[in-house]
Amino acid sequence: MSDAVDAAANYAGVWGHRIGFGRSPVLLIVDFVRAYTEVDSPLYAQGVAPAVKATESLLNVCRKLGFPVVHTKVAHTAPGFDDGGIWVRKAPVLKCFSEPRLAQVCEGVEPIDTEVVIVKQYASAFFGTSLSSLLLSRGIDTVILTGCTTSGCIRATAVDGVQHGFRVIVPRECVGDRHPDPHAANLFDIDSKYGDVMSLVEVVAHLSA
Amino acid sequence: MSDAVDAAANYAGVWGHRIGFGRSPVLLIVDFVRAYTEVDSPLYAQGVAPAVKATESLLNVCRKLGFPVVHTKVAHTAPGFDDGGIWVRKAPVLKCFSEPRLAQVCEGVEPIDTEVVIVKQYASAFFGTSLSSLLLSRGIDTVILTGCTTSGCIRATAVDGVQHGFRVIVPRECVGDRHPDPHAANLFDIDSKYGDVMSLVEVVAHLSA
Amino acid sequence: MSDAVDAAANYAGVWGHRIGFGRSPVLLIVDFVRAYTEVDSPLYAQGVAPAVKATESLLNVCRKLGFPVVHTKVAHTAPGFDDGGIWVRKAPVLKCFSEPRLAQVCEGVEPIDTEVVIVKQYASAFFGTSLSSLLLSRGIDTVILTGCTTSGCIRATAVDGVQHGFRVIVPRECVGDRHPDPHAANLFDIDSKYGDVMSLVEVVAHLSA
Amino acid sequence: MSDAVDAAANYAGVWGHRIGFGRSPVLLIVDFVRAYTEVDSPLYAQGVAPAVKATESLLNVCRKLGFPVVHTKVAHTAPGFDDGGIWVRKAPVLKCFSEPRLAQVCEGVEPIDTEVVIVKQYASAFFGTSLSSLLLSRGIDTVILTGCTTSGCIRATAVDGVQHGFRVIVPRECVGDRHPDPHAANLFDIDSKYGDVMSLVEVVAHLSA
Repeated sequence: MSDAVDAAANYAGVWGHRIGFGRSPVLLIVDFVRAYTEVDSPLYAQGVAPAVKATESLLNVCRKLGFPVVHTKVAHTAPGFDDGGIWVRKAPVLKCFSEPRLAQVCEGVEPIDTEVVIVKQYASAFFGTSLSSLLLSRGIDTVILTGCTTSGCIRATAVDGVQHGFRVIVPRECVGDRHPDPHAANLFDIDSKYGDVMSLVEVVAHLSA
Repeated sequence: MSDAVDAAANYAGVWGHRIGFGRSPVLLIVDFVRAYTEVDSPLYAQGVAPAVKATESLLNVCRKLGFPVVHTKVAHTAPGFDDGGIWVRKAPVLKCFSEPRLAQVCEGVEPIDTEVVIVKQYASAFFGTSLSSLLLSRGIDTVILTGCTTSGCIRATAVDGVQHGFRVIVPRECVGDRHPDPHAANLFDIDSKYGDVMSLVEVVAHLSA
Repeated sequence: MSDAVDAAANYAGVWGHRIGFGRSPVLLIVDFVRAYTEVDSPLYAQGVAPAVKATESLLNVCRKLGFPVVHTKVAHTAPGFDDGGIWVRKAPVLKCFSEPRLAQVCEGVEPIDTEVVIVKQYASAFFGTSLSSLLLSRGIDTVILTGCTTSGCIRATAVDGVQHGFRVIVPRECVGDRHPDPHAANLFDIDSKYGDVMSLVEVVAHLSA
Repeated sequence: MSDAVDAAANYAGVWGHRIGFGRSPVLLIVDFVRAYTEVDSPLYAQGVAPAVKATESLLNVCRKLGFPVVHTKVAHTAPGFDDGGIWVRKAPVLKCFSEPRLAQVCEGVEPIDTEVVIVKQYASAFFGTSLSSLLLSRGIDTVILTGCTTSGCIRATAVDGVQHGFRVIVPRECVGDRHPDPHAANLFDIDSKYGDVMSLVEVVAHLSA
């Protein structure tokens, strides 16, 4: 960019405050399906496969340590994608989640029987679902947010997470997108305003402590 | 009761205002499953079978006239009924919706391919679902509310319907409950404060006009 | 009623399970304003004044023991009561909350500086407000629900409270209504399905323990 | 950026579908207060003053043509900013909205008596408010979204707008931010996925037609 001062310098001392972990975290894995990792999918996003790998390692840590895990997936069941409302009309590409091959969960992060799968139709994992009630009723106060895409459902879920009253932690390696620019811009916004973006190593160190 | 003046007289002229139909109604059929009509079910409710019959006739009218129809059903998919949150702990009987026999839709009101089925975990059909977005995005302004039970999901959905901004119409014959007292008390409250309780004949006449 | 078996017997063993207190309660006082206690108000409700008295004593206990307290009040600020949406059209009597005399908080339960006042337009204290986020962010898991009216905002708030993931406790003496029938019917429904209705003595004993 | 293909090219043909206007729009003006235009405010954002000017001209058109207008402002009234929940802890700078000078509405876009002002505590104008019910009950299907900041409340409101079922239109000149990078990145995301970003001229032309 042409500006003399970059955004990070402009935000320094105003935004970017740390929120940290609360006492009771959940690992939330948003929409890791093959629509994002198959190269012939319209939603193919080059940054997602590495994020799946990183999330697999975090998932294993959480399972070993006994932290709860919640998965989300997009599914439309109404005729004409009516349950996608106006969003499907703005973004018809979302219809590809109805192709069975593309709707499959990515290898390595499949839910197991003791984990919850939330079905959603919108960008935020909290919107039009009972996710907040599930977390609240289990005493969870912190959402470790992973999945895809950074500029889509991750951003929307981060904003909604803090709005609902949860601390939001995003392990940087565990989210991905189709292009590095929106990915970086949304991590910047999330870290500045909505949740703490941390390295996977830091998140694992905190959970293990 | 022992009061000199009954509730209807006490409310007269204060509550009970008519709201009427808007321009674009939906028929909403809430939770008509065999958990309420099988006599050996813990949720067996003697008033539901006649309400199913009445709703079947209204459903046929709506299909014939081309009005949209939305169905709801309760389903828990999380281990330990965690997606039922605190409500399942207050009301463990809700777990019976997971018995396949009791989860079956009542005969005569089964959804057809062109109709939406909303899966819910809570009393209100609007809570933790994307129902409001679905209705709003289709331009619907009026909810014709049928199903069961009057004192449970119907009452909760009536309150939430008007809160979300919809006109609520309850055809009296199309809702049912396990005991006549809570049934009558909740129809009284709904009609007084949240939506218009009308006869099935009146509703059909309005839709046909 | 004419039924051989009354509702309590019909519900026994199915509904009415106890949920109990969690670890961190809030006292929620809903809409105790003079619209309900002035005899010339259209909303005058004979059961409210005693409920205010009982709530005053509970409020004093909560303040002394350091439990958080949240108050709600109804206020419309939009021209033509537009922020009351369809509900004000169904219930035009709600407009009386805009009369300054009737909008005054009842004597004895006025909020103090350290307490939150939530402004609402709808029946449920959770609907169209940030109440759930406030409670969640303070780690609260239990709502001790007081105020008026039992068949209106108390019922709606009890249903929404458990839906959001809170345990709901209603001290029977601390809620009131305009007529004993809807009052009793709604306490029956709440206790059966949404929250525990207890005596004020039991609630105070629990908080003091 | 260093990538061979820029984000616009990467998104072409997948995202960025047009949604267009519905039949009944509202002009929504989000948080135009002096906290963003006073140079000594921590929230000072150089792009806001020009956005206020552009919005003033759009506001005049809407008033002249009789389209409804809704304004929002942030206000915390709870002790310790408790009604800001976790978000105020992540972003303590939000507390500056409580300084009377900074809370004043910017000159030229002050609400008039016939317009609604929604008080909010969170980023999305829909979150923790009754905005959706207000719009739905008036039959509005399209939100013309103006205000600040692009990367904060505008982005959050755009996402929530389409989630709730509204068409979202953002007149590019009518939103502003503190730095051109997040401003541009969020307009890109909104236009790609949530609402149509258009020129002010196009929006005025559509409204006048």
